[in-house]
Amino acid sequence: MAKYVIGIDFGTLSVRALIVNVKDGSELAAAVYDYPHAVMAESLPNGHALPPDWALQHPQDYLDGLSKVVRQAVADSGINAEDVIGIGIDFTTNTYLPVDERYEPLCLKPEWQDNPHAWVKLWKHHGTQNYAEQMEKKAIERGEKFLKRYGGKVSPAWMFPRLLETLVEAPDLYDATAKFIEAGDWIVSQLTGQEKRSLGMAGYKAFWSKKDGYPSDTYLKSLNPKFEHVIDEKLSRDIYPLGTKAGELNARGAAMTGLPEGVAVAVANMDAHVSLPAVGLTDSGNLLIILGTSACHIMLGAVEKEVPGVGGIVEDGVIPGTYGYESGQNCVGDSLKWFVDNCFPAAYAEAAKKAGLDENRYLTSLAEQLKPGQSGLLALDWWNGNRSILCDYDLTGMILGLTIASKPEEIYRALIEATAYGTRRIVESFEESGLPVDRVFACGGIAKKNAMFMQIYSDVLNRDIRIARSSQTPALGSAIFGAVAAGAGAGGYDSIETAAHAMGGTSDTVYHPIPENVRIYNELYSEYLILHDYFGRGENNVMKRLRKYRD
Amino acid sequence: MAKYVIGIDFGTLSVRALIVNVKDGSELAAAVYDYPHAVMAESLPNGHALPPDWALQHPQDYLDGLSKVVRQAVADSGINAEDVIGIGIDFTTNTYLPVDERYEPLCLKPEWQDNPHAWVKLWKHHGTQNYAEQMEKKAIERGEKFLKRYGGKVSPAWMFPRLLETLVEAPDLYDATAKFIEAGDWIVSQLTGQEKRSLGMAGYKAFWSKKDGYPSDTYLKSLNPKFEHVIDEKLSRDIYPLGTKAGELNARGAAMTGLPEGVAVAVANMDAHVSLPAVGLTDSGNLLIILGTSACHIMLGAVEKEVPGVGGIVEDGVIPGTYGYESGQNCVGDSLKWFVDNCFPAAYAEAAKKAGLDENRYLTSLAEQLKPGQSGLLALDWWNGNRSILCDYDLTGMILGLTIASKPEEIYRALIEATAYGTRRIVESFEESGLPVDRVFACGGIAKKNAMFMQIYSDVLNRDIRIARSSQTPALGSAIFGAVAAGAGAGGYDSIETAAHAMGGTSDTVYHPIPENVRIYNELYSEYLILHDYFGRGENNVMKRLRKYRD
Repeated sequence: MAKYVIGIDFGTLSVRALIVNVKDGSELAAAVYDYPHAVMAESLPNGHALPPDWALQHPQDYLDGLSKVVRQAVADSGINAEDVIGIGIDFTTNTYLPVDERYEPLCLKPEWQDNPHAWVKLWKHHGTQNYAEQMEKKAIERGEKFLKRYGGKVSPAWMFPRLLETLVEAPDLYDATAKFIEAGDWIVSQLTGQEKRSLGMAGYKAFWSKKDGYPSDTYLKSLNPKFEHVIDEKLSRDIYPLGTKAGELNARGAAMTGLPEGVAVAVANMDAHVSLPAVGLTDSGNLLIILGTSACHIMLGAVEKEVPGVGGIVEDGVIPGTYGYESGQNCVGDSLKWFVDNCFPAAYAEAAKKAGLDENRYLTSLAEQLKPGQSGLLALDWWNGNRSILCDYDLTGMILGLTIASKPEEIYRALIEATAYGTRRIVESFEESGLPVDRVFACGGIAKKNAMFMQIYSDVLNRDIRIARSSQTPALGSAIFGAVAAGAGAGGYDSIETAAHAMGGTSDTVYHPIPENVRIYNELYSEYLILHDYFGRGENNVMKRLRKYRD
Repeated sequence: MAKYVIGIDFGTLSVRALIVNVKDGSELAAAVYDYPHAVMAESLPNGHALPPDWALQHPQDYLDGLSKVVRQAVADSGINAEDVIGIGIDFTTNTYLPVDERYEPLCLKPEWQDNPHAWVKLWKHHGTQNYAEQMEKKAIERGEKFLKRYGGKVSPAWMFPRLLETLVEAPDLYDATAKFIEAGDWIVSQLTGQEKRSLGMAGYKAFWSKKDGYPSDTYLKSLNPKFEHVIDEKLSRDIYPLGTKAGELNARGAAMTGLPEGVAVAVANMDAHVSLPAVGLTDSGNLLIILGTSACHIMLGAVEKEVPGVGGIVEDGVIPGTYGYESGQNCVGDSLKWFVDNCFPAAYAEAAKKAGLDENRYLTSLAEQLKPGQSGLLALDWWNGNRSILCDYDLTGMILGLTIASKPEEIYRALIEATAYGTRRIVESFEESGLPVDRVFACGGIAKKNAMFMQIYSDVLNRDIRIARSSQTPALGSAIFGAVAAGAGAGGYDSIETAAHAMGGTSDTVYHPIPENVRIYNELYSEYLILHDYFGRGENNVMKRLRKYRD
C-alpha cells in the first residue's frame, strides 16, 4: 500500500502543507493558509505603534495555520491519515521568539503583549545593524575563527544581534525569557513535546559548527557582561543533524494536525535549503537559486573555502556529508511587490483589467518587449538592504537614468535586472574563491512562472538555468526529509541522497543565454559593480547617513 | 478714457492672452488655448516615428492659438478693441524653426513635412549634446571670449548647436532654409510683417552681445566649413533692444487678432525674463525664480561677473541698463508631472477622487505631513538633464534611499526637494561669484498654488521668499512691454522702470525659513552636492554611458 509524507512550509506570509507520495515524489494535494496578522510593520495587534522598519509576526498564526493546512490537504488528497509515515517542517529562518519554560511565547502573555521585543522577529526586521557591527568588530579584534565561515560579516538578522537587541533594549523581557528559539524549532517542539534544535539553523544563523560548537563565552562576554552565558541560559548546546528524526507526534501534535500519534517528525529545516533535495541536488558544484520575496543562493561544496559575501558555510548544513554555502538577496519579489503596490498607475490598472492580467503579468507583458539597456535605467537592488557581498542592512535601493520618458515597465524591468546583477556578483564570488559553479538551477514561484525574469537571469549570468519540477519545492523538500525521518523500515528512506533522487528533480524547462543580450548585460553589469562598490563599500556612505537623518 | 494692453504668453503647451489696464496693471480677462499637437515626442503629425528624446511643435498651433485667445480675451473683458494701445509677446526660448524667404515654416510645405528637422524644435528637444560639446571644445581651444558670459558652457538647446544638428543631419533642409528664427521673433514677423530679432533671445541663446556682436565667422568655420557665414546667410545681425517697438499690427496681424491696424507691437521677450517687471523688479540684487514645467532663475546685476553655471550674462538682456544673469533647471513641474502620470497608484487615485483633490494636491496633502529627512530619500533633479551648473543634457534623474516602506508621497516630496537643492546650488554660485543675492522672489503656477513647495524652497535656501502678485506674470510682463512699445504719448509709458512700478508687484505672501528644517536640509544638501559632483563632473559618467547603451 502507498505511503505518504507531509511537507509543511512556513513562509513569510503563509503556511502550506503538501501531501507527497513517498515512492516518486508525486504531489497529491496542497493547502495554504495566509497568516491573519501577516507581517506587523506598523503596529502590534493592540494598536501599539512600532518604530520604522520593524517586522514582527504573531505565533498563534503559525499554530492555527498548521492545523488548518494539514487537515485540509489530507482531506483534499483523499488519502487515509493512517498512511502518513512522516512530517517535515521548514521555516523562514532568522525568525526568533522568546518563550517560557513550557515553550509558551511571551507575547501571548498579558504582561508582555505590549512589548514589541516579545513578538516574533522576522528575517526582515531591521534595527540590529549596530549590534551586528559591534559583534563583527569585536570578533575581528579578538581574531575569532568562526567569522571566516560567514564571509567575515555578522548579519543583523542573525540570532546573536537579535538577542543583544533584546538584552539592551528590553532587559526585563530578556530576564523573563527562558529560551530564545527559531520558530521552526519551536513548531517541532509543539508537535513532539521536545526541543531538538536544527543543525542547519544553528549553523547558518547562530555561528555553531560541528567542529567548534558555538562562539566562546569569553567572546560573548566581551559584547556584554550579561551575555556571557547566553548559550547555556537562553539557547542550548544540543544540536541535531538534518535528516534525523526529532521525535514523533505526541497527543497534542496529533490533536493539532488530525494525524495519528507516533508519526515521525523530522528536525526542522530552513525554508530555502530544503529545496535542494526537491530539485534532486545532493552533489557539489551545483548552485540553486530560490526566487521568491527574497532570494537564496545555495552551493554545495566538497571542501571548506572562504567566500566573501557568503552568509554561512556549514558542514552538513544543507545536505549531510557536504559543505553548504549560503548567500542571498533580501529583496527580489519584494521590490516588485513594492513597485506594484506603490507605483502602478491607475491607467495601467485599467489596461491590465481589460487585458485580464494581474499587475505583475501586465508589467511583464510590456517589459518583455524591451531590449537590454533600452530603458537607460540602472538600479541597485537594496530595498531591504544587502545580505550577501556587503552584508549591510542599512543600504537602500537606488534607481538611476530616469527621464520624463521613463515608463513603469522600464522601472519594473530595471528592478528585475538589478536582482540579476546582484546574483551575478554572488556567483562570481563563489568562483573567485575556488568553488566552481558547474550548473545553475532555479526554483520558487518566479522561476516557474516568469519566463522573462529567468531569461534575464540567464543572459546576465551567461549560463543555462534549469528549473525545478515542483512549484512548491520547500514543501516537497520537507516531505523528503519527513520520508528520511520515517526511515526505510517504515516505508521511507534511509538517506537524503536516496530520497532526493527518488522524489525530487527538474522539469524540461531550461533557459539559454542569448549572446546579443549577454554582450549588453556585461556592460551594464560593469556599471552596476561600480555603483555597488561606491555606495556599498564606504566611498560614499550616503545611504547610511540618510537612514540616520530619518531615524 | 482707460487704455489697455495685451500680453501674449506662449508656453510649452498653451498660449495665453491677458488684457491689462495700463494705469495700474489690473487684469481684466485672460484666455488660454492648448496646442492641439502639444509636444510631439513620439511621431510627426503624419505618424512618422521620431528618435528618442525629440520634442517638436507645430507652428500652426501658435497662429491658431494667437487668434483665438486675443479675440476671446477681448470679448470676455468687455473692453473696446479700439482702446488697445499695445501688444507684447513672450515665448519659450530655444524654440527654433526654419522658414523660407516669406517666413513660411518649411514643415508646412509638402516637400519637407516628413523631415523631423523641418519642425519647431522645442527647448527640451534632445540630441544636440555632441554639437554643444564640439562648440565648447573649439571655443576653449581658440580662447573665444564669448564663452565666459555663458559660464564656460554651451547648452545643447541653444541656437548654434541646433543649427549644426540640422546642417549635419539634414543638409538638404539646411540649404533650403532661408532663415532660422526663434518662434517669438517669428510671431512678431507674422503680426507686423517685419523681422525684428530680440536682443534678449540673441543674447541668451545665440551668443550675441552688445559689445562684441556674434561669435566670429572664423570660429563658426572651425566647426564646419559650411557654417562660416551662417549668421549672414541664415540669421541676421540686426538686433533690437527690449522695450522698443518692433512695429505695428499690419492688415494680416489685425485680421488675425481682431484688433485695429496700427497697434504697437513690442520686440519679443523671453517667457521667463518677462516676468521681472511683472513682479516690479528692475534693480540689481534681486533674484526671481520662475517655477513651472522647468525653472528659471534671473538675477539683475549692476556689473558683469563670471558666474559658473550661469546660462547667460547679457547686457540689457532682461531690463535695459542692467546685466541680466540667467540660470535654470530643466525639470521642476515636469518631474512631478512625470511622477503623477507614471507612478500614481490606483489606490491613491481612488482616495484622491474621494477627497475631491487632483493628483498633485492629493500628494501634497500627504507630503506636507512629512518632516525634512523623514523619508530617507534623496533625488537628483535631472529628469531633463542639467542646464545650470553642469550644463549637460545627457545627465539623468536618480532616486536613492528607497526601501519597501517608501511611499509615493515620499518620492514626490524628494523630487521637489531635489529641485530646491538644485536652486540652492545656483544661488550659491551667484554669491560665490560676487553677486550678492539680496532678496528672493518667486512666481509661476507652483509659487502661487503650492505652499509646501515654497516652504521647502525657503527652508532649503534659508531665505525669505516673496511671491508675485499676478498668477500670470509672463503675460502681465508682456503687457507691460506692450505699454512701453506704445509709449507715453499713446497712453503707455516711456521706460520699463516706470511701467514696471506702475503695473507690476508682489502679493502679501512671504515664506520664512523654519530653523529646525533649515538645519536638516543643510545636511541633506551636503549629501546632494556630493552626488551632484560624483555623477555630474565626470567621476562616474554612468548616466552618459547608459544613454549610449540605450541609443
